[in-house]
Amino acid sequence: MSVAKSEPVTLVEVGPRDGFQGIGPFIPTETKIDFLKRLAAAGLERIEAGSFVSPTALPQLRDVGAIVAACREIPGLKPQFLVPNARYGATAIEAGAEVLVFVVSVSEAHNRSNVRRHPSESVGECARLIAARPAGVEVRVDVATAFDCPFTGRVAESDVLDLLDRLVAVAPDAELCLCDTTGKATPDHVAALFAAARERFPEKDRWAFHAHDTYGLGLANIHAAWRVGVTIFDAAFAGLGGCPFAPGATGNVATEDVVWMFRQMGVETGVDLDALLSVARDGALLPGGTPGGRIRDALGDRGSPTCGA
Amino acid sequence: MSVAKSEPVTLVEVGPRDGFQGIGPFIPTETKIDFLKRLAAAGLERIEAGSFVSPTALPQLRDVGAIVAACREIPGLKPQFLVPNARYGATAIEAGAEVLVFVVSVSEAHNRSNVRRHPSESVGECARLIAARPAGVEVRVDVATAFDCPFTGRVAESDVLDLLDRLVAVAPDAELCLCDTTGKATPDHVAALFAAARERFPEKDRWAFHAHDTYGLGLANIHAAWRVGVTIFDAAFAGLGGCPFAPGATGNVATEDVVWMFRQMGVETGVDLDALLSVARDGALLPGGTPGGRIRDALGDRGSPTCGA
Repeated sequence: MSVAKSEPVTLVEVGPRDGFQGIGPFIPTETKIDFLKRLAAAGLERIEAGSFVSPTALPQLRDVGAIVAACREIPGLKPQFLVPNARYGATAIEAGAEVLVFVVSVSEAHNRSNVRRHPSESVGECARLIAARPAGVEVRVDVATAFDCPFTGRVAESDVLDLLDRLVAVAPDAELCLCDTTGKATPDHVAALFAAARERFPEKDRWAFHAHDTYGLGLANIHAAWRVGVTIFDAAFAGLGGCPFAPGATGNVATEDVVWMFRQMGVETGVDLDALLSVARDGALLPGGTPGGRIRDALGDRGSPTCGA
Repeated sequence: MSVAKSEPVTLVEVGPRDGFQGIGPFIPTETKIDFLKRLAAAGLERIEAGSFVSPTALPQLRDVGAIVAACREIPGLKPQFLVPNARYGATAIEAGAEVLVFVVSVSEAHNRSNVRRHPSESVGECARLIAARPAGVEVRVDVATAFDCPFTGRVAESDVLDLLDRLVAVAPDAELCLCDTTGKATPDHVAALFAAARERFPEKDRWAFHAHDTYGLGLANIHAAWRVGVTIFDAAFAGLGGCPFAPGATGNVATEDVVWMFRQMGVETGVDLDALLSVARDGALLPGGTPGGRIRDALGDRGSPTCGA
């Protein structure tokens, strides 16, 4: 099941959506676009660049239409946009989005809190989204609370696999991403769940993992997922965002830390670490942001060191 | 090679030596003793409580004699004291130390920088230390730069195994600890080296790992070592100390983060997390210290959460 080191991994930069959405002061659209350009130039070809949601709920992302348009002008960029239901999916497609990220939680309590629906209703939304999409529009499904729920604790593997059964039935070609919403997953838990999912769906050869670093286990969990064959990893530059449930703590794993780990291991990510560090240092200074991650400080102003593995 | 979950792991709290030594303002001896008492009461039975070194080099640890005496009065505590050579080993034994930690680097450049000797000379010192110790005095050997050297980069596995050969010859009953001095080791590197060491020395059933979290890989590396059978892990409460080579970054893995990870995995450490968090929060406030770690912030003032895995 393990992945050959020669096989590259794909990073999905979620900072411009997951990181920015929790920042209070509005980030000017031009600033957002500048970050997108620099992240893409650093080699991050996949970026979650916004959400189609109520601008009342997430005012920071209210300029998503302009962001979709701007992304079309950025060479090599494959942006993805989060949608909570089929209606917003239609809006996103109308705006020109070509990759949609649909979110559903395994936990009923979390799904109701997040999108005000039973998970079964969300599966129905996903089916409608898939049915209505034009040719060429791709869908990724983020499976939230796949390990642990902030309301109900540890999530049973069988509950995750049951939801995956239903999602694969309605969205057979969707990319599937298991999300450690609370950050409480441990490496053994991550490896076991992905191994079980890969065994259940042998036809799906590419799995994604959205780790959180809230309790310091982000990289450990990403490594555990990689060991059992996961090759797509979400992360946010400067470690921005990702943790609404642990005030004072950060959530997303810093993209630069993930790039560092894989680079030290000799696994290709396609990302220029020095270019990314430059963007991440600016991202960490965004007013109202809560940056996380380690290597910006560890590498200081020295850039990536010449000695070392 | 992997360890059964039912087998407990042993944590060695190194904050009172490795954490305190880099703090400029002198920590009053009574304050140090109070930390030692509280750490022991939290269940940390093994604590690296000081060093017998030149007080000029490390003035913070100049009260080590008083610390040795105080440790005798702390119930259940098994303190260990670092010594750089046989002469200081004799001083430590005279002061009443019963567990000595001898340090030698695989890298000649690092060993010369650290103790002004070629590694072969240090092996000779180790032999003299072992020969001179009275019955009942235990020795642990910390093998520094076992993965990477701040001066010369990645360290070859064969160089580590060669040094271990010589150390095992002169100190067959010593506990061996491989140290990631720079924090640049990755989980695959850690697993491979410990697996090779365990294969080379099948008679040694207990191995220790001193990880650093400088680049965020501390827990990932500890988990990797645990997977291949390592059961003894160094860590420092509040993540104090450990990183002289990356200014602005912290080095030691926070003991509370390690306890958290193993607790979430169902692996026993014998440590009361809430009691440890209380000590770690105070340790993080030590003037002149550079705290690290995640769960103090993530758990906020709520202590360990009732929901979760």
